[in-house]
Parts: sequence; C-alpha cells; structure tokens
Amino acid sequence: VRIAILGVGLIGGSIGLAARRLGHDVVGYDSDPGVLGAALERGALGAAGEGIAEAVAQAEAAFVAAPVGVLAEVAGAALGAAPAGCVVSDVGSTKRAVAAAGEDERFVGGHPLAGAETSGVEHARDGLFEGATWYLTPAPRTSGVLYERLHRLLVSFGARPVAIDPDEHDRVMASVSHLPHVLANVLVAQAAHALGEDAERLPAIGPSFRDATRVAGANSAIWTDIYLSNRDALLAGIDDLRSRLKDVRVALARGDGAAVTSWNDAARDDRRALLEAGVVGGPVHELRASVPNRPGVIADIALALGRAGVNIEDMVLSPSPDNRQGVVALWIRGDEQAERARELIGALDIPVARA
Amino acid sequence: VRIAILGVGLIGGSIGLAARRLGHDVVGYDSDPGVLGAALERGALGAAGEGIAEAVAQAEAAFVAAPVGVLAEVAGAALGAAPAGCVVSDVGSTKRAVAAAGEDERFVGGHPLAGAETSGVEHARDGLFEGATWYLTPAPRTSGVLYERLHRLLVSFGARPVAIDPDEHDRVMASVSHLPHVLANVLVAQAAHALGEDAERLPAIGPSFRDATRVAGANSAIWTDIYLSNRDALLAGIDDLRSRLKDVRVALARGDGAAVTSWNDAARDDRRALLEAGVVGGPVHELRASVPNRPGVIADIALALGRAGVNIEDMVLSPSPDNRQGVVALWIRGDEQAERARELIGALDIPVARA
Repeated sequence: VRIAILGVGLIGGSIGLAARRLGHDVVGYDSDPGVLGAALERGALGAAGEGIAEAVAQAEAAFVAAPVGVLAEVAGAALGAAPAGCVVSDVGSTKRAVAAAGEDERFVGGHPLAGAETSGVEHARDGLFEGATWYLTPAPRTSGVLYERLHRLLVSFGARPVAIDPDEHDRVMASVSHLPHVLANVLVAQAAHALGEDAERLPAIGPSFRDATRVAGANSAIWTDIYLSNRDALLAGIDDLRSRLKDVRVALARGDGAAVTSWNDAARDDRRALLEAGVVGGPVHELRASVPNRPGVIADIALALGRAGVNIEDMVLSPSPDNRQGVVALWIRGDEQAERARELIGALDIPVARA
Repeated sequence: VRIAILGVGLIGGSIGLAARRLGHDVVGYDSDPGVLGAALERGALGAAGEGIAEAVAQAEAAFVAAPVGVLAEVAGAALGAAPAGCVVSDVGSTKRAVAAAGEDERFVGGHPLAGAETSGVEHARDGLFEGATWYLTPAPRTSGVLYERLHRLLVSFGARPVAIDPDEHDRVMASVSHLPHVLANVLVAQAAHALGEDAERLPAIGPSFRDATRVAGANSAIWTDIYLSNRDALLAGIDDLRSRLKDVRVALARGDGAAVTSWNDAARDDRRALLEAGVVGGPVHELRASVPNRPGVIADIALALGRAGVNIEDMVLSPSPDNRQGVVALWIRGDEQAERARELIGALDIPVARA
C-alpha cells in the first residue's frame, strides 16, 4: 500500500515507522522543513513531498496527523488532491472538528489512543500502536472498501480499531481525558492559591493530589487546540461537574453524613463499573456477511458492533465479480461476542453466518 | 516509656508495633473486642486495658487513634484519666476537631501522613511511619517537656514531626488530600452519567482519568467523617474550584485561545512550584537555645520552624536543676536551614547558638 502522511510528529512518524517496517511505500509532508528532514533521517518516511498535493498524489491511504487546530483544513486539502481510491483519515483527538470531511466517501475520522505523554518525531516508534484502541468514525457515505482497507492497515500496525459515532467519541473523550485535565488544572490553581507562600515549604503532598494533578498544565501547544475543538462536550461536562460540586457542598454544609456516605458509595460503584469492564478472551471466530455494495453498509456494521462493545479483530471485504454484492469476513474474539455480533449484523437485515 | 494506644486499627496497631520493637511497654484499648484481640495477637500491644481509664492509668504517652468522628470524645476521656505527666496525642486527619483539647497542657494534636491505602490492624507494621511527615499542632498552653517527649518518640518511630497551626493544617489537607477525593468522586459520577449505558463497553479509559479517580469512593467508614470534620476548609475549597471552573468555562465558551493557554501555562507553573519543593540535604547541625520554663515556648519554636519549612530532625530538652530555665537542643539538617533556624529562634527573643 502506498501511504501518505501529512504532519510527521510523534503520531505521524510512528505511523510511518510501523508502515515501513511492513514494507509499505511511505511519502510524507510537514509544513516544518526541519521536522520533515528529521522524519526522513529517522526512517519514518521513504520520501518527502514538496507539499500536500505531491505527497498524496499516488497514495492509497493518507493520514492527516497535523495539529488539531488545522486538521480540518489539511484534511480538506488532502481530499482535494488525493486520487479517487485513496482512503483519507486523521488522528485528531476530537472528531466533530473533521466531521464535515465525512461528506466525502473517502474520509474516515480516526483517533489512536497512544502517545499522550510525549511529542515530536524523535519519540516516534514503530510499536506505538501495539494494543492501542484506535477510534474510527465512519459516516453514512463512507466507502466500505476504503473503510476495510484502513481497518486492516491499523490492525497490521497492532492497533484495535473501534468504530464510534463522532459525537459519542467527543463526549467519551471529554469525560475520560479532557475533563481530568481541566480538573487537574483547577486543583493545582486552588492549592497554590489556598496555600499561598506556604506552598513552597510543604513537607508532604498527598498521593491523591500527586495523581490527580499529574497532567496539570499539559503542553499548551497541543491542549489549547484540544480544549477548543471539543468545547461543546467540555462545556456540558464542566456544567455537570459544577452542579455535582454544588450538591456535595449542600450535603456538607448541613452536616448530612448519610448523604455524604451515599454520594461516596455511589462514586465507588461508578468507578468500578467504568474501570472494571471485562477484557474479552477466548477463541477467534470468523463471521461471513453478504453485503450489498452500497455506501455506508460497512460503516453500519462497524458502528453497531462498536456501540455494543464488540471488537472486530480483523476484516476482509471481497467484492463479487459484478461489483454489486460482496462478502465481508469478520473475526471476533470470544464465543459470546461472536454470537452477539451475529445477532447485531442480522438485525441490520444483512445475511450473516459463522464460517 | 509506658505508652497507651486507644483504638488499634492500622495506625494504632503500627504505633504499637513500632513502640514495642523499641522496647516500650504498650497497653491498648479498643471498643471492638475482636480488634483488641487481633492487636494483642499481632504483638501490637503488650497488654489490653478494660477501658480507656485503665489503659492510660500508668501511661507517659497516650495516642488516640480512634475514628475521626469520635476523636474529640475519646481524647477528652483520655485526658480525664491520664496522669499529670502523660502527653496525649491523636492521629486524626483534621485538627480543628480536637483543637479544644489543646486547652489541656498535656495535649498535642497529631496527624501522621501514612497508611492511606489500607485499614485494619491486620495491615499494621512497625515501619509504617519510616520517613513519613507527622504533623503536630502544639497550642499556646502545650507543655514543652511533653511536646519534646512526643517529638522524640515520633522520631524514634522513623517519622519526621512537623509543627503546624491546626487551621493551616486543615487548609493544607483540604487542598492536597480531601479536595482531590471530592473531585475524584464528581469526575466518576460525571463520566458514568455522560457515558450512560456505553460506560460498560468503553474500550479504553485514558490514563489521566485512571489517575484522577484512583481514590474515588474511598472507604466511607473513614471518609464521611473526614469530609464532615474538615467541612469549613472543604466548603471554601469547593467554592474556589467552582469559581475556577466557571472562569475556564467562560474562556472556552468565547473560544479565547489566549486565555485558555495562559490558564493552562499557569497550572503547569503552579504544579511545578507545589511538587518540586527541594528536599534538604547536608550535614546535621546542633543548635542550643536557653528557654524559660513557661508553657508554649517549645510550641512557639516548633511552629516558627514548621512555618518556615525548617525541619527539626530531633530535639532534647534539659530542664535546669531549679526547673525555672532549660536548654533545648535542636538538630537541623543543612547549613542554610540551620542558619535560618537560628535566626527564627533569635527573633523569638530566645538566646540561641550553634553548638
């Protein structure tokens, strides 16, 4: 597969290294010539393009790995220059920002959950995506053939692609990543203010404070864009947090021990439910579904399984000779999960059977 | 030293184990006979008393390690039954709750920063306090002789006693421990609510969420009391956090990238200032101060040094034969810290010199 990478920092560079290890041709472009040179030197790219258009000219898959603030613009330029059969994806941490690109059947939004701790092509490595969830946001127009190509490519990088609706993705990321960052920031600010000049002489900081503020003041060059691009979900989350803080304030102010206890117990239960979701094991089953060759059918299947928490370990789409019908083979781990997948695909009126 | 321990859970049991390893006589009492028996069996106590009065009858030092909710009551009972020369302390995580006991010259509030993760005498160990900060809140009436005895005992357990004002202690603990717990609780509640039924199928939770919610729903039997006993500082902290969340909400809502960046950068600086306070090294110096035998003078010295972040590694108080004057020897680590201690004690109009 000929692959184009636009923006070769940590994520773009790691995609390049993973793809080249697998023998793919990789052409890249970065608006910063120094970064582009460093990526070539690291072997993350086989060649550099003069610009976006040249980089994507021959591509079968293109990854837009530019900063969140310019994602939509670069994705648009890539779609404008890429050939008809080229799947274009991005790696931005909010997905509504690039949702408009989903009007093009070649575009699938993406977001690998990897590499949060560092940045820059100098930290890129070919194993960065090993075992990592890689969210994909196929749209109703998304081409099944191109979605399948992208899915298989990500699996070959060691990632676990999971289809999700863009709004749902942004809401999930607000809760599990962006709001913890916001709270870390307000917590250190509160402590610095409350402790005043004593702050520098604290003999000890609680482990809970250390953990809760580990991400405070994360790289502004990245995070200002993330906060702004996901602001709808963030504003809703902040309002919810403020209202919950007000509720506990009321219970504390009136010394209501029973209310405080039940609030605290509920938090314990919530945490357990959120963090102890079981990891699925067991044998891998193959399902074969006969799908009409219309846009969106593969996206429908992927989203239905993604919503149900059923992971597609791998997929292969084989069009029929007349190109009007096809068979998609899906590999699902675990007996129950495979049965669940069969039911979900059947519910879409798509004939499906265990192979 | 004959030591009494009232309440023999994790902290009380660990005090017992540490004291017995050093050869002290340890008598304990717990309102739960099962816990008392387990503490005897573990060797945390040499003997069990029939009640508070019997346990403290012969004691030279008594530790109240009961739950926060009954601390003031048990401390009062201990002071009522303990001999004139017995120092009485507690281990509660908020200190205003027992501030009234400070009217008695034998009482010094205390709070070891250790053992937050587990509870129960079965987890007690003699090295629990090794290297741990142990806050002490001497009051104006506190007897210098008794404060010194307590300080030396804690040092012999491996702890680092630090004198602090009770209000300041509670404000510090609200910021570095109790508020992180409150935020962990509201964050999991927000996520559980926002993710709804999808919560159980999340393929991945960000590391920031995992860290920020590690303490969510901590043991209600302990934490409801802690929240309620420190509610003044907590309410102020919650109000401050809500107002800071509102500020960032405003900046996000109007898409003000410059404001978001400067807020985020300030958080980075605050965190650095809070967590990177230097650990003092260097040689240990001895200071000798001539102190009048009046209540509170040792507390004054300890608090002045605690406020300035100067750690007293060890102290010995030697009363003069006529008991009207004494010499306190203080050991301070680091050239600068020792010089700072000399200045601070001198500023209290107490003659002091490097030995």
